[in-house]
Amino acid sequence: MAADAADLSRLSLNTATTKAWTLREAVEGAARAGLPAVGLWRDRVHEVGLAAAARIVADAGLRVSSLCRGGFLTAADDDGIAAALEDNRAAILEAATLGTRELVFVVGGLSAATAPGGPAAPYPTGGTASGGPAGDPARDVVATRARVADRIADLVPFATEHGVRIALEPLHPMFAADRAVISTLGQALDLAAPFPAEAVGVVVDTYHVWWDPDLERQIARGGVEGRIACFQVCDWILPLDADPLLSRGYMGDGYVDFATTTRWVRDAGYTGDVEVEIFNQQIWDTAGDEVVATIADRYRRHVLPHLT
Amino acid sequence: MAADAADLSRLSLNTATTKAWTLREAVEGAARAGLPAVGLWRDRVHEVGLAAAARIVADAGLRVSSLCRGGFLTAADDDGIAAALEDNRAAILEAATLGTRELVFVVGGLSAATAPGGPAAPYPTGGTASGGPAGDPARDVVATRARVADRIADLVPFATEHGVRIALEPLHPMFAADRAVISTLGQALDLAAPFPAEAVGVVVDTYHVWWDPDLERQIARGGVEGRIACFQVCDWILPLDADPLLSRGYMGDGYVDFATTTRWVRDAGYTGDVEVEIFNQQIWDTAGDEVVATIADRYRRHVLPHLT
Repeated sequence: MAADAADLSRLSLNTATTKAWTLREAVEGAARAGLPAVGLWRDRVHEVGLAAAARIVADAGLRVSSLCRGGFLTAADDDGIAAALEDNRAAILEAATLGTRELVFVVGGLSAATAPGGPAAPYPTGGTASGGPAGDPARDVVATRARVADRIADLVPFATEHGVRIALEPLHPMFAADRAVISTLGQALDLAAPFPAEAVGVVVDTYHVWWDPDLERQIARGGVEGRIACFQVCDWILPLDADPLLSRGYMGDGYVDFATTTRWVRDAGYTGDVEVEIFNQQIWDTAGDEVVATIADRYRRHVLPHLT
Repeated sequence: MAADAADLSRLSLNTATTKAWTLREAVEGAARAGLPAVGLWRDRVHEVGLAAAARIVADAGLRVSSLCRGGFLTAADDDGIAAALEDNRAAILEAATLGTRELVFVVGGLSAATAPGGPAAPYPTGGTASGGPAGDPARDVVATRARVADRIADLVPFATEHGVRIALEPLHPMFAADRAVISTLGQALDLAAPFPAEAVGVVVDTYHVWWDPDLERQIARGGVEGRIACFQVCDWILPLDADPLLSRGYMGDGYVDFATTTRWVRDAGYTGDVEVEIFNQQIWDTAGDEVVATIADRYRRHVLPHLT
């Protein structure tokens, strides 16, 4: 198959994949390789400033497929809740300024998490007493999820007002304790259900959801409901990296069945961009242009044939 | 609370927790600590021989809460299928001889897995051709699960004939590629559904299922259907161990909300044993009697108050 630019008309480079690149370098690198879009991370945007970031993308003629990331909505205390709402309102304004409708939300973990990937905080004194009351609220995943639902409701009017959609991202269950208490696509769609599809959507990231026995049905549901906001692709690699967050790989290097998953997303009517978001130290240590070329090659081999 | 034996009337020591102990040592250690039951692994049974193992347990006056493990049903080739059926029929006979009804099944991973925890096999030549046919059958998790269903159907008559129940264990999704394509309790119950509850049940292991947003509902369903064959407890520890299989910890050292989960299992009508199964190098390096004492202490603090 000829490597013409049209092949890449839906391929987006997420800036987390080329971590060593500044936002300008990533935008120019994507454009150079014939990619029409980038997925941006807020830290990269903040480095150059919001207005400059928007101008860099526009000048290159690219679109922004999504902004990563809002969320972290699980605080139980008033100060924590206020801080989360303030930060997410800022993220919504940033997404609007950057011209993307999709703001990816990673919703946060349990209060017992001392840090992402860190050990659980000890039980409060008395909380484990034999015959005592309920367990530790900091480990109560049901209550934590209820707080996420409350915060989404808080943010929907502001997001809607600015034409931005909250795109809920289920993370792999191995991150449920410390990073995101949304673990499945079905759960994300349930949380989105009370709100219009234009206000709250979901992210399908192959790394996080490939294992889900309910995946085909939930992708189809996401299509029917018009809520698939973002399709992110990368592979599930074993052995896991010492930091499991970095265990992602190029499509084709791991276990994900991209043929089947891509067809499910296609059949759900998704016509948006396909973002490649890979956290991987070895890839981060590789020259950016080489990374983008590999991404384009793997996309053509493993995703594109099943996308249309 | 007094540490009387009655407190421990449902606590079972899984022999994987005290890995340095022989079967006899584990049985005698459990009995010494006042535990009424053990969960046995086949390798420990084979070391002493089946008849001797059964006698050791009976002589100590203990019961066998479960036998681990059958399964590994995902082979696609005739020889692999025949070997899996043969090994599982042997496991069924062993369970019957040991006097336990519950044979835990870990169903196996994708054919692309080169080893548990190992990298994915490369794609077959041509399988990734642009515009080519479907992806790689060795990565097809849907077809792999269908083979699991077929093998369960093959084994049910033999298991029923010997009064043994196939107890399907959902493993944490981080093991879906290489160890078990059953990842949720709901999926396990769906696979069990075509068969009588006496023939096919499910395992609830807190380590594997704690994160599941559908857990409460599926535990309740397991109760209504009479299929909860085994309740295993241990904690979800972060950071993950270099070998994630060994990331388990004593109840109370990690993120699991034992109060809530135990109540769900209780409310589902489960009245069986509570097995403690922990794979953890540090615990394996600790003297067995100390491990059993710690298990009993943690059980009394985190599980027992919510069990009745």
